[in-house]
Amino acid sequence: MGSFFERITEDPETGARAGILHTNHGDVETPIFMPVGTQGTVKTQSPQELLDNRVQIILGNAYHLYLRPGGELIRNAGGLHKFMSWEQAILTDSGGYQVFSMSDLRRLSSEGVRFQSHVDGSQHLFTPENVTDIQRDLGPDIMMVLDECTPYPCSFEYAQKSHELTIEWAKRSKDRFGNTKALFGYKQFQFGINQGSTYLDLRFKNLEELLKLEFDGYAIGGLAVGEPKSELYKIAGLVASQMPKDKPRYLMGVGKPEDLVEVIALGIDMFDCVMPTRNARNGTVFTWGGRMVIKNASYKSDFRPIDPNCTCTTCRNFSRAYIRHLFSVGEVLALRLATAHNIHFYMELVQKARQAILEKHYKAFKEAFYSDYKVIETESYSKPIKRRK
Amino acid sequence: MGSFFERITEDPETGARAGILHTNHGDVETPIFMPVGTQGTVKTQSPQELLDNRVQIILGNAYHLYLRPGGELIRNAGGLHKFMSWEQAILTDSGGYQVFSMSDLRRLSSEGVRFQSHVDGSQHLFTPENVTDIQRDLGPDIMMVLDECTPYPCSFEYAQKSHELTIEWAKRSKDRFGNTKALFGYKQFQFGINQGSTYLDLRFKNLEELLKLEFDGYAIGGLAVGEPKSELYKIAGLVASQMPKDKPRYLMGVGKPEDLVEVIALGIDMFDCVMPTRNARNGTVFTWGGRMVIKNASYKSDFRPIDPNCTCTTCRNFSRAYIRHLFSVGEVLALRLATAHNIHFYMELVQKARQAILEKHYKAFKEAFYSDYKVIETESYSKPIKRRK
Repeated sequence: MGSFFERITEDPETGARAGILHTNHGDVETPIFMPVGTQGTVKTQSPQELLDNRVQIILGNAYHLYLRPGGELIRNAGGLHKFMSWEQAILTDSGGYQVFSMSDLRRLSSEGVRFQSHVDGSQHLFTPENVTDIQRDLGPDIMMVLDECTPYPCSFEYAQKSHELTIEWAKRSKDRFGNTKALFGYKQFQFGINQGSTYLDLRFKNLEELLKLEFDGYAIGGLAVGEPKSELYKIAGLVASQMPKDKPRYLMGVGKPEDLVEVIALGIDMFDCVMPTRNARNGTVFTWGGRMVIKNASYKSDFRPIDPNCTCTTCRNFSRAYIRHLFSVGEVLALRLATAHNIHFYMELVQKARQAILEKHYKAFKEAFYSDYKVIETESYSKPIKRRK
Repeated sequence: MGSFFERITEDPETGARAGILHTNHGDVETPIFMPVGTQGTVKTQSPQELLDNRVQIILGNAYHLYLRPGGELIRNAGGLHKFMSWEQAILTDSGGYQVFSMSDLRRLSSEGVRFQSHVDGSQHLFTPENVTDIQRDLGPDIMMVLDECTPYPCSFEYAQKSHELTIEWAKRSKDRFGNTKALFGYKQFQFGINQGSTYLDLRFKNLEELLKLEFDGYAIGGLAVGEPKSELYKIAGLVASQMPKDKPRYLMGVGKPEDLVEVIALGIDMFDCVMPTRNARNGTVFTWGGRMVIKNASYKSDFRPIDPNCTCTTCRNFSRAYIRHLFSVGEVLALRLATAHNIHFYMELVQKARQAILEKHYKAFKEAFYSDYKVIETESYSKPIKRRK
């Protein structure tokens, strides 16, 4: 294989790009959405169902997998792919975001971050080095460096200090990555993470330092943590515009269907979000017309599929009335059918976006999307970050 | 198609029989185990997964489906097969057992049984007639008559009175069945249910009356409600021996793998039980060597499949360590993988039993089963029946 990231084309009217990530677990066609598989499973789905919905890469979490079942166990299993029986690509998050959003009593120092497990309250230390080691054990195709994810709002002083720490950690992560080897006979790549809160000058300075370290790809972190949507788009767009064209760009934790359509236009290649899977379990499904709360009583006797034009297994076999019944009596199959549909929708969305980019009419695709899709401002997928203690 | 039930062969050394139930939703090869799909879904499984595990007929519950989503809704959906997207055969229980085991404040009269819904406390009346009508709405291939399921232990007087009521109801059920038609263009069959508690004379008298009504098949009810295993086998065997050879025999609510092996030898053709599905969700799986509590810590680092010789999807793709991890972190996929394996095991068990009957060495099969399978007396699958008020 040639380079890791192959740029195929750019849309002439927007910043949208189409490309391919070449991994030893298959090619990943960008722009790509990565379903979240926090604990070694994309909630409610089997690996075969993910494949059936044309999922090409999933996201795992070093934080959760380190706590349960542990990096050593997954190493002994032959890596996360083998452990969970998933033969396509995997990216693991470093655990930075989880430490800052989930665990109590964390203590930052230049060494790393001490935190209490959200499971049993036990004490742990994440350092740039051991988080790299953990991700060697897990064996994802792509690993992320340890970073500090800043809260919103965030003072300039806090953001400045955090930026410095994040850069120091990025250097140490890169060093450890360079001094260790992949354990399972296939190549691993490492991404740096841009921070700097909503301060553009800090974001740029942070990126400049990151670029010197020459990571395999660059992520934008610290967004979708409560800031206004306009800020998210502005920062993501400006930061992405300063990133090298020949490296993949990953916007972490984003987002709603309309967000994907927006940030693809800004030149983002990769994203992940719990929204399609978590909303499904809460009884909300996505269609090209907008969101549907499928568990609502209005669907009680509605024998049409969720989306009559959808080709997913759920829509080919089951009615709104049946899925609504399953939700109202608390059956697991409800969660499965809604999740499969939402993943199918997200994958179809990025695949259609990619096709539009290849045909060089992404702007028209975006306009067509908005003409059909009813955007509703509802609960956010952003999660406030706990403040530094 | 010829007759509903086709007898193929009998084992020369035991009472075991092999046959076929011909339904408009496919042939059902007996002896057959029917997984329980109480609320229009076999818990955690998709219809495709049931097919993959060679399930030929499932059991639905008129009681649950009448309460939610209601018979009318399922009739409007085109019947239960269409509603749940299951194209093989379905048998529905009359709701008699559920009224007596689940609902409070039930009042028996010769008219029928008044009961409170376990869902919302609302008042309902089941009569032999409306339960037949509900099962016309649901559209199973096989429906059961309304009966009274006696508790254990049960006085002779109680059992005598209950027998009389059950026979009266059976007559009225048969009449209603004869005066109504199948709604969806395929044939429905109706089974009578033998009662009489543990009093053999009552059981025989009850059966004699039932046989006069000429049902399409005969079930043995009121067992597996707390009586000793020896009583269950004795009564099932003696009652089955008095049943016509050319009609299918169904032992309701049984059982563990070893029970299936026993009652097949007694000439039983059909059975259902929540055990494979419910135990799976509690973390217990079945193998030819016996039960395994897969969520136990002893499987933490065990990378073998549940059963290395098993050909089910779970065993072909996932390790004990992975399934144990999924259980310990509370992931839905744990329930799915364990359930699929257990259904596969139960289906393989009855299919191997049938093959042994066809080859006329069922006794040797049964002995071989016991030489491998470690029987453990653990929690019972029987459910005590609430006493008449």
